[in-house]
Amino acid sequence: MVLDNVRQVLGQLKGKTFRRLFLVACGGSQALMMPSKIFADKVSKTLMPQHYNSNEFIALDPVTLNEDSVVILCSQEGKTPETVKAAAFAREKGASVITIAMVDDSLLEKAGGSLFVKYGYYETCDAIDTSYGVMYLLVAGLIDNQEGTNHFGMMSESLIKVNPVIQKAKKDWEETLTAYGEKNKDAKVIYSLAAGTNYSQSYVLCNCYLMEMQWINAIPIHAGEFFHGPFEIIEKGSPVILLMGCDSCRFLEERALEFCRKYTDNLLVIDASKCDLSGIDENYAGYMTTLILNNLCRLFCKKIAITRNHSLDIRRYMHIVEY
Amino acid sequence: MVLDNVRQVLGQLKGKTFRRLFLVACGGSQALMMPSKIFADKVSKTLMPQHYNSNEFIALDPVTLNEDSVVILCSQEGKTPETVKAAAFAREKGASVITIAMVDDSLLEKAGGSLFVKYGYYETCDAIDTSYGVMYLLVAGLIDNQEGTNHFGMMSESLIKVNPVIQKAKKDWEETLTAYGEKNKDAKVIYSLAAGTNYSQSYVLCNCYLMEMQWINAIPIHAGEFFHGPFEIIEKGSPVILLMGCDSCRFLEERALEFCRKYTDNLLVIDASKCDLSGIDENYAGYMTTLILNNLCRLFCKKIAITRNHSLDIRRYMHIVEY
Repeated sequence: MVLDNVRQVLGQLKGKTFRRLFLVACGGSQALMMPSKIFADKVSKTLMPQHYNSNEFIALDPVTLNEDSVVILCSQEGKTPETVKAAAFAREKGASVITIAMVDDSLLEKAGGSLFVKYGYYETCDAIDTSYGVMYLLVAGLIDNQEGTNHFGMMSESLIKVNPVIQKAKKDWEETLTAYGEKNKDAKVIYSLAAGTNYSQSYVLCNCYLMEMQWINAIPIHAGEFFHGPFEIIEKGSPVILLMGCDSCRFLEERALEFCRKYTDNLLVIDASKCDLSGIDENYAGYMTTLILNNLCRLFCKKIAITRNHSLDIRRYMHIVEY
Repeated sequence: MVLDNVRQVLGQLKGKTFRRLFLVACGGSQALMMPSKIFADKVSKTLMPQHYNSNEFIALDPVTLNEDSVVILCSQEGKTPETVKAAAFAREKGASVITIAMVDDSLLEKAGGSLFVKYGYYETCDAIDTSYGVMYLLVAGLIDNQEGTNHFGMMSESLIKVNPVIQKAKKDWEETLTAYGEKNKDAKVIYSLAAGTNYSQSYVLCNCYLMEMQWINAIPIHAGEFFHGPFEIIEKGSPVILLMGCDSCRFLEERALEFCRKYTDNLLVIDASKCDLSGIDENYAGYMTTLILNNLCRLFCKKIAITRNHSLDIRRYMHIVEY
């Protein structure tokens, strides 16, 4: 049903040729667009993707935002004020606007107009129906629309195939993730490394799961940038969560692995490429390992929350005080 | 002289029309390209800028990297292996390649070819001759070349005018920065917030100055993203260095200021817009405040290094062990 919804939105845009693709959101929704941005960067000859925090998008007011642009905006509950404002801003500029949210009739949908996709709740729906799945499909379809490629077909096939792999990975990893959380429940700071599409998951893990939901200091570090500064902080005992997948940036994660193995004895390596990915086309498998990592990072956070007796729902500021 | 060198490089490219601008480097050199990337994003109708870590650039191998691209690469000593490799990679793809470094006859210059600019040492030269100055001028000139604008003239004028402002700011801020370093010399973690072009300085402050050179945990947080997760970690006593300038994203920094004033009593606000910017065109002043912040962050690091008796030159891994 989500797939039909995506197809319908793409159908309405067929025939238009866009020069720019803007991906716009805040926080976790912003991070979930990173892999799709990288995908477009890698394969699209015409779409020239750009990726912004919603407020920054409005403030920068890029000169190329006009009727030749397509803008995708995401907010889980469809009410993030900055993103709602950014949708209205993009429409004023004449851009084609697609909004995605987990609920119908949201402020975001209203601000964006008719091109809306409702995605499913990540805990209960299949990968293809999640926000990540929808983003991959939308971007793939937009590229296909104007470049005559078949990314949409390959992406949807891959998303269907990765679903049981995710379910299995969650079972297989439960014990290890629980143990690592127990070991590091009092950590002063946790580092997370990854590259390429997986960097999005270090970002989500640190900013949303650990800092927001657990009040644990956490630093997301791009595995390629790690060696140009941040690695100097690593020493025996440093808690490092290294995320690995199989996109074209894997060698950066492997380089970080080799270093971390030598210099800390408190390393957790989550290597999604070890899952059984058979049947998934190798050109799309990297995007799928990011989804596996997303699920495993969330599982880690759930486990450490239980160990620390700090519910994932506790907030001291968000939606509580004015800001 | 640096200005003449930049003009000469731009002159050699005059008449070519590029569809993409790639900015490629690692670590501090990568960060110093962020403001120029934002500048191009904001004003260029044709250049479609993109910004990558050097290894990621090679790994992603964007399909639009070809003879219609111009690639600027930076490495201070001109020997960062990933960046040297990226320069050769870009040339193989047929792109026009500009390299910048602080030394002549480097590996980077050799890999990049004839379009080379040697910039000056940030401690001793004027703003216009630094890597930041050169990046602004190159990007401004590339836009002018194909869009008939006059950004180069305005940018060079602004860079000349900001120079005495930087020198004065360093004197004015010495005491405050020293005191904040003394107060936080044993901090377990320091947060730095900024938005727009200034985010680059939170990145440099945390990754290069604090983590690399002082082995202090430090988290760069985009001021717009702050409210979508990370702000939950802030409490009384949290050391926050908020960087503020006067680009179009200033309101994001102001929002962070209001929040931080309420919830931590250990806030350092470095507001470069309070400097005397009279005479600098308001469309370029924001890019200049980023340079003031760059100097003040470096000064802070020098001061905290003395207080902590931890020289800025100590490394345990960089250029010492294999990695």
